[in-house]
Amino acid sequence: MLPLAEIRVLDLTNLLPGPYCTMVLADLGAEVIKVERPPAGDPIRSAFPGIFETVNRNKKSLSLDLRQVEGKAVLTKLIERSDVLLEGFRPGVLEKLGFGYEQARAVNERIIYCSISGFGQSGPYRDVPGHDVNYLAVSGVLSISGNPDGPPAAWGGVQIADLSTSMYAAVSVLAALRTREQTGRGDYLDIAITDCVLSWLGPRMGEYYGRGKPPKSEFMGRGAYGAFAARDNKYIVVGALENHFWQNLCRALGLEEMAQRKEYGTWPQRMKRGGEINAVLREHFLTKDSAEWLAILQKADVPCTLVNSFDDLSGDAHLAARGMIHLQEGRPQVSFPVKFNHTQVAEAGLAPQVGEHNKEILAGLGYGPEEIEKLQAAGAI
Amino acid sequence: MLPLAEIRVLDLTNLLPGPYCTMVLADLGAEVIKVERPPAGDPIRSAFPGIFETVNRNKKSLSLDLRQVEGKAVLTKLIERSDVLLEGFRPGVLEKLGFGYEQARAVNERIIYCSISGFGQSGPYRDVPGHDVNYLAVSGVLSISGNPDGPPAAWGGVQIADLSTSMYAAVSVLAALRTREQTGRGDYLDIAITDCVLSWLGPRMGEYYGRGKPPKSEFMGRGAYGAFAARDNKYIVVGALENHFWQNLCRALGLEEMAQRKEYGTWPQRMKRGGEINAVLREHFLTKDSAEWLAILQKADVPCTLVNSFDDLSGDAHLAARGMIHLQEGRPQVSFPVKFNHTQVAEAGLAPQVGEHNKEILAGLGYGPEEIEKLQAAGAI
Repeated sequence: MLPLAEIRVLDLTNLLPGPYCTMVLADLGAEVIKVERPPAGDPIRSAFPGIFETVNRNKKSLSLDLRQVEGKAVLTKLIERSDVLLEGFRPGVLEKLGFGYEQARAVNERIIYCSISGFGQSGPYRDVPGHDVNYLAVSGVLSISGNPDGPPAAWGGVQIADLSTSMYAAVSVLAALRTREQTGRGDYLDIAITDCVLSWLGPRMGEYYGRGKPPKSEFMGRGAYGAFAARDNKYIVVGALENHFWQNLCRALGLEEMAQRKEYGTWPQRMKRGGEINAVLREHFLTKDSAEWLAILQKADVPCTLVNSFDDLSGDAHLAARGMIHLQEGRPQVSFPVKFNHTQVAEAGLAPQVGEHNKEILAGLGYGPEEIEKLQAAGAI
Repeated sequence: MLPLAEIRVLDLTNLLPGPYCTMVLADLGAEVIKVERPPAGDPIRSAFPGIFETVNRNKKSLSLDLRQVEGKAVLTKLIERSDVLLEGFRPGVLEKLGFGYEQARAVNERIIYCSISGFGQSGPYRDVPGHDVNYLAVSGVLSISGNPDGPPAAWGGVQIADLSTSMYAAVSVLAALRTREQTGRGDYLDIAITDCVLSWLGPRMGEYYGRGKPPKSEFMGRGAYGAFAARDNKYIVVGALENHFWQNLCRALGLEEMAQRKEYGTWPQRMKRGGEINAVLREHFLTKDSAEWLAILQKADVPCTLVNSFDDLSGDAHLAARGMIHLQEGRPQVSFPVKFNHTQVAEAGLAPQVGEHNKEILAGLGYGPEEIEKLQAAGAI
């Protein structure tokens, strides 16, 4: 049995943060009903179909116009029969449509109602629109991003703020379900993307104060840490932070003098002098090909890897051995990353078409074929 | 009552990925016993005390030498009485010490045993050491990080691979606890940092294939998205991805001609031509101060914010209204980011000293004062 079997999640979110959260819940066995506005559905379907496909696997789609009376009636019935509701509208929007928390609770007091927004349901920025980069800015993450000597830049590769929020939302829904089992009560969850990624900044904030508030260039400088071009123009990635790894690295590279320099003796010292250390390494790594360096450094027990491109990923022997990626109709699906011995997770299926599960879901709510046709004719679904 | 009240977590991890996970579990009410090697404990205590303090709040510390017979006896008793065990040794190390999964299960078959490692417990890279940057490299995230026109660089500001793993570990422990309630069985969780952050790359992989495998410069280029220097040398951060935000932006900036250009008409087009769009914006933003731009753009409903530095964070009116940060003996603590109506989370307390809770924990296991003194004398604690 899957951990969230028998849990029904009503997903009113679009784009990335909400859908990635409900993907995790669906992977764990929840029945996720994605409620989409007809006819186009989630805007990311047309803008980036590839993103849509990967984060909406294993979900059911119900098209529903929440501005129409008939649509409202369907949603009300669904709320009655659901455990979790996720929404990502701007604060107040769903309440105006008749489906705020108090309204939902009136029909189902056990509902766990989860609002994801950029800045939360309170505070001066509540109504400011935003994207990942804006939340990174307000949370302070952007101030230490980008080149340590350069301007702030959201260059982490993945959507850090959005996805940290997806994960905190999943954790918190699981916690609220656990509480509900003990108390019988549902709950309201106000989840701000800015707050979640700020929580991720916590360790760095501690480091910043602990190190005496260094400027960004020094704070984010890291000796013997980063990607270095080899002779063949491929990148060798080294993460030799601890003293023993640093010593192993210097010795393997034949840089005995550097291994013995006192001002490079501790991890914090090598952060402070990251620029000069990396300048030496940069030049040194240009003298051999990447495969050669990899063999030398891994043998010397130095944290060292190559950079996989997207095209490399499916050929990587390790990721293949872990069973992490498979292509489905030309689209990659990444498996749920945690491997359990017993606990099951869902196999990654396809994402639904808009309204693909209308009949199944409506029939489950007691709608007959004629009523479903009427809803269709009225444009409510 | 806290959601994880009555759940005891034995935390054998150091540094960041494991401790951030158990911080989340402690925030949710679990009793987390941090088992540390005497006398120095978790190496991050001395290397980066600020990081240690922030991620180890609300935990108890037990110093314990697992190489000594007396230490092994204590750990065995703790395993008997715990619900979850987290460990982050290299694969195989804990088994050699006598505490692999099968060994732990022999004394407590309900244990949820969670191994966090860089590359997992299987596969060719299993024994390769690594840090955040290495996992980013193998997972493919590094290949699209850094300047879109530049080399790969881990410049996201926060430890993306490590922390995505902390969150997947927390989600999976909660899922396994749920399964255990249904089946009575514990479980083994093999969590690879590379796998977790690869799962975060899923949406980008989908986008990459969906967009026809564009080169990095085009794939990661984003028109009207990023940090732009204003006249006062502060950065204005814009995230105008959707058509209506793009139109609002152009109009608010007085760039009517740009708003009407057909080759900038769609979101994907503006990604493809991100470089030229941002060059125009970069010049334009230099003509006014950041506060002026912020007022103009937020009034025009454009996703727009300023960049908070670490020093700005405690003065930010919004974050203050959300109650997100407080200083504790000069160290920042970021609150658990999700706000529940009913479900409680723990108040952020201080991190423990090495062995601070030895007496309390050992007494709970039935050790008398003399026995505890003997353990101390033997250097086992």
